[in-house]
Amino acid sequence: MITELQQYLADEFDIHFQNPDLLAEAFTQASYVNEHPEQHLKYYERIEFLGDAVLQLFVSEYIYRRYPELLQGKLTRLRAAMVCEDSFSKFAKECHFDQYIRLGKGEEMAGARNRPGLLCDIFESFIGALYLDQGRDAVERFIHRVIFPKLDMGWFDHAVDTKTSLQEFLQRDGDVDIEYHLLDETGSENAPEFKVNVSADGQVLAQGTGSSKKHAEMDAAAQALKKLRATTK
Amino acid sequence: MITELQQYLADEFDIHFQNPDLLAEAFTQASYVNEHPEQHLKYYERIEFLGDAVLQLFVSEYIYRRYPELLQGKLTRLRAAMVCEDSFSKFAKECHFDQYIRLGKGEEMAGARNRPGLLCDIFESFIGALYLDQGRDAVERFIHRVIFPKLDMGWFDHAVDTKTSLQEFLQRDGDVDIEYHLLDETGSENAPEFKVNVSADGQVLAQGTGSSKKHAEMDAAAQALKKLRATTK
Repeated sequence: MITELQQYLADEFDIHFQNPDLLAEAFTQASYVNEHPEQHLKYYERIEFLGDAVLQLFVSEYIYRRYPELLQGKLTRLRAAMVCEDSFSKFAKECHFDQYIRLGKGEEMAGARNRPGLLCDIFESFIGALYLDQGRDAVERFIHRVIFPKLDMGWFDHAVDTKTSLQEFLQRDGDVDIEYHLLDETGSENAPEFKVNVSADGQVLAQGTGSSKKHAEMDAAAQALKKLRATTK
Repeated sequence: MITELQQYLADEFDIHFQNPDLLAEAFTQASYVNEHPEQHLKYYERIEFLGDAVLQLFVSEYIYRRYPELLQGKLTRLRAAMVCEDSFSKFAKECHFDQYIRLGKGEEMAGARNRPGLLCDIFESFIGALYLDQGRDAVERFIHRVIFPKLDMGWFDHAVDTKTSLQEFLQRDGDVDIEYHLLDETGSENAPEFKVNVSADGQVLAQGTGSSKKHAEMDAAAQALKKLRATTK
């Protein structure tokens, strides 16, 4: 399984591990080690401890540099949304890491291979192994491909107050008049839907929808930020 | 004050900042910024956000490599003891960083300069500024001088169960018979002092003292680990 994983990492990510034992350790759960005592294997937890800290720093550094307008509280909320079980388990799945985990039979039967907690751990331990084996540049390349594009895709917009972020973004170079206009209100009384747009100095930037006026405004601000960031890159 | 700080860092740590604004930001509290609106200053919180993650990773990596026998749970406990307000505020004080913090008058009067929370923040923000201005090698040199020697001085022994660590260390390559012997019990009834030694397969490794038999054994195990690690490095 580890040979297949090495091949997959080489083909898909151009990552070539020097030390396959480290990679094997990163993808092996304790239950597998216990079932194969004669092999004297190691399981992923120590490497995961390291990988978790690697991800914390690299994500922190990236958002620190990318959002010079964000204050500490928001940076912290954004990092918490990015560095968490929910995100990491999705990244692990997207990278097909679930297929390469070495599990004991009981854990396999219990469906551990699809458990977000385990997928998150494996994502962290893979990063730890990559850091130890290939150094920080390899980790940077990998997370620039797997994690950071999700920022532009709006995965973490819920973590930041997008209206304030938009205001900070637009007002970096001076005062701008930002307005939200309700365009439409549809749906039933129990499931209303609001549509708004947001404009800066009279120029419409984006539209947004939501189940309340506030949510629709947050969505419009997020859409506007996405467009603005795409054009100012 | 920032010029004096630059001079002090150069003299004491051979650290020469390229960008003094970054250093100034790292040592400036919001209260000072608010009192000097005309100077358009920045305060330390964003850099502290980054510095915190830098310290997490560097400490994690160091203890991961140094203690190959420690399992994840203990690594986590040890890191928590090292990366915390209590330690960082002491490091900040030891480095005389308290003398260079720029505070508003109210905060100064309220004694903020000696508040552990602020000292801890400033230690983290200094590390963040050092990382941004001088890179990871400069941070490594600094914390190898300021933080890691405290491990050998026993600052964090309370975080790890030294008896279990010694057992794990000695039994890496097979079974070893570890015994603790009470050598002496002195002091008064209210302030007893115990002296024990620890031996492996009959060979005495170290002595320890403590206010209870258990504490004396923990101390003996810590002393033994220290000796063993020094000889196997």
